[in-house]
Amino acid sequence: MQKILYPSIDSWSELLKRPVFDASSLEERVVPILQTVKSQGDSALKEMTQKFDGVQLESILVTEAELKEAASLVSTDLKDAIQIARANIEKFHKAQQVTVEKVETTKGVVCWRESRAIEKVGLYIPGGTAPLFSTILMLVVPAKIAGCQEIVLCTPPNKEGKVHPAILYTANLLGVTKIAKVGGAQAIAALAYGTESVPKVYKIFGPGNQYVTAAKQLVNKEGVAIDMPAGPSEVAVVADESATPSFVAADLLSQAEHGVDSQVILISTSEAVVDKIIQEVVNQLSELPRKEMAAKSLLNSKAIVVDSMDVAMDMMNAYAPEHLILEVKDYMSLIPKVINAGSVFLGHYTPESAGDYASGTNHTLPTNGYATAYSGVSLDSFIKKVTFQEISKEGIQNLGAAIEIMAATEELFAHKNAVSLRLKD
Amino acid sequence: MQKILYPSIDSWSELLKRPVFDASSLEERVVPILQTVKSQGDSALKEMTQKFDGVQLESILVTEAELKEAASLVSTDLKDAIQIARANIEKFHKAQQVTVEKVETTKGVVCWRESRAIEKVGLYIPGGTAPLFSTILMLVVPAKIAGCQEIVLCTPPNKEGKVHPAILYTANLLGVTKIAKVGGAQAIAALAYGTESVPKVYKIFGPGNQYVTAAKQLVNKEGVAIDMPAGPSEVAVVADESATPSFVAADLLSQAEHGVDSQVILISTSEAVVDKIIQEVVNQLSELPRKEMAAKSLLNSKAIVVDSMDVAMDMMNAYAPEHLILEVKDYMSLIPKVINAGSVFLGHYTPESAGDYASGTNHTLPTNGYATAYSGVSLDSFIKKVTFQEISKEGIQNLGAAIEIMAATEELFAHKNAVSLRLKD
Repeated sequence: MQKILYPSIDSWSELLKRPVFDASSLEERVVPILQTVKSQGDSALKEMTQKFDGVQLESILVTEAELKEAASLVSTDLKDAIQIARANIEKFHKAQQVTVEKVETTKGVVCWRESRAIEKVGLYIPGGTAPLFSTILMLVVPAKIAGCQEIVLCTPPNKEGKVHPAILYTANLLGVTKIAKVGGAQAIAALAYGTESVPKVYKIFGPGNQYVTAAKQLVNKEGVAIDMPAGPSEVAVVADESATPSFVAADLLSQAEHGVDSQVILISTSEAVVDKIIQEVVNQLSELPRKEMAAKSLLNSKAIVVDSMDVAMDMMNAYAPEHLILEVKDYMSLIPKVINAGSVFLGHYTPESAGDYASGTNHTLPTNGYATAYSGVSLDSFIKKVTFQEISKEGIQNLGAAIEIMAATEELFAHKNAVSLRLKD
Repeated sequence: MQKILYPSIDSWSELLKRPVFDASSLEERVVPILQTVKSQGDSALKEMTQKFDGVQLESILVTEAELKEAASLVSTDLKDAIQIARANIEKFHKAQQVTVEKVETTKGVVCWRESRAIEKVGLYIPGGTAPLFSTILMLVVPAKIAGCQEIVLCTPPNKEGKVHPAILYTANLLGVTKIAKVGGAQAIAALAYGTESVPKVYKIFGPGNQYVTAAKQLVNKEGVAIDMPAGPSEVAVVADESATPSFVAADLLSQAEHGVDSQVILISTSEAVVDKIIQEVVNQLSELPRKEMAAKSLLNSKAIVVDSMDVAMDMMNAYAPEHLILEVKDYMSLIPKVINAGSVFLGHYTPESAGDYASGTNHTLPTNGYATAYSGVSLDSFIKKVTFQEISKEGIQNLGAAIEIMAATEELFAHKNAVSLRLKD
């Protein structure tokens, strides 16, 4: 980690820059994949799975027998842990349900919003040796609370044509409707356009590599909704002299082990604490199985010493981190100063990994500075709010003249006439 | 309007198809505009305003003197109407504020969400002879309730370098921070990248022509948030034998007068009513100033007779209209059947134009079938919800083991370690 002392405000934007990746060349490779799946459906999926995943599938959809086998392969301890996480995520996301409140804006004019589930949603879960079943919890639990009818999960098979049991077990437990063994941009195409096996959905969620991300952006431009724009994961830790260096170091490393493009920012009012944290990072790094990856991502990472907690919070807001950990004594007083962040972890006993897995908050969060304008995934991500209005004969009398003059000023005379006819009635 | 009797369900998707427009050629023309504004700032804006709007501007920003002049040019009647609309929009959007609710998901683990305004937002308001000041109401009122700090409005000047007084008056009244005389894709570029005069914003709202829409999509791909994907405006009216044909005809024409690509769908259980409505459309059309435009858009439009109200609602949901008017007797019983719609107008005295201007609901709504996955603009569009969590020493003891086994299964050992260290403390 680079240590930077008291940088001037002019240097912040350079200092807090994220690694930039040019996706334009990717699009050229993704567009033909989308088009082929759109026109050829399942046969294209099978061909691409053979080409990219090295396996010839008989059936794209996971079978009942495979689900049963998976359930038998998952340990009771893991099942119990999943149950704890599920209960917490359910509790937190159920609290996001709102009751319908009718508002009489003018006498006889009643307006309200009602929530409706997005009927069909798709989830992408990446493959690889480590099964990201926690993301299934984060996406399927709110989808079920919302009432989504069709929940389709796509994930690539391994060379034996199998999906990790933890993924199958979690998806089946939570009520995923269909699981398709397909990965990459072709999975996003299947969800966006539909094939014989994979139903077309209205919104696509979930992480993925650069091809998946590019495919999501391209189908989004065609009108399929997506959860949010994607970027490498990141954390900012704000620490004062009360911070425990070993805890902070472990939190920084949790982020760094995600991938070589992960970014870690430490901001502190105490140079002494920063030095101890950097030493702890070195110590803990040597013990990690993913130490090469974490070490590389630490090259993008900075430890910045600032004058005051106010400056620390201004710098943090300028960075707009996905995850923010406030390892400071008086963290409650800092809450009003948090403007741009995805999810915030308060105090010394709240590691980011709690929110990643089991505390109840969602771990699908805005990266890459998008916390300036985007929220993380929540129950809202799986619903639409439809507005309703009911105007009585009296109501249109009360409101009619205002509408008429506004419509006339905008030169929309049929709009005006729709009111005038009712006023005359 | 084409009349279609009892179409089979197989024919619906063809029948309800929207006019398709290929935007790919537009992008080639918009990309250089974005790049030029990005690199040359104000001087590019001035050059393009001369080229596209035919006027050489001294100052891009509207001055105090112009705002004063505008206020003197707006009639008292219009000012009063704007005040009525503003009060209703404020009442409806203020009711969307939520109070913070802390949830203890596990003993010692407390999670909640807090709303934060998006600090900088931009609005685009198209030019032309008819000033769309109503859209300023729909966007600035919730932005102010949210607490957005910087609200920048871009709108093209006319050949005299002026902006319509109704636009300037409304923007100034509601608290827009800066008004820039710039239109088209160059305005979107200015908002996305910032220039000497126009501040960079985090999210861009508002309607516009195809160049504006293409520019919004392109900057969205670069990470600037936008309100929603755009498409031509549309209405579906569901009418039974209780409907007043002249009212329905006026509502259909309100939509048709928006533009030649507007679409109007009438679904009814009564052929007799449909015939009367079509006759009324013909009668009213001849009286309208915009009759040529409305007549053209009626060519895209269909009047469909179906067997039952259930079929009518299924067809409506398959279409997913931006606006839905239920001109039926027992409209309350149909509300639970409304799944895919932007805004719904209930009964015989609730014309769409009420919601377009003054009832209080927002008129920025999902078109083009996007109501399957998107909501209209609301207070939520101007805020982010940041999640917070506070875990006590006891809380991490309660939750720690579950996190450890989940992190280990995902092979994220630093994640596990961040918990293990705290458990040992």
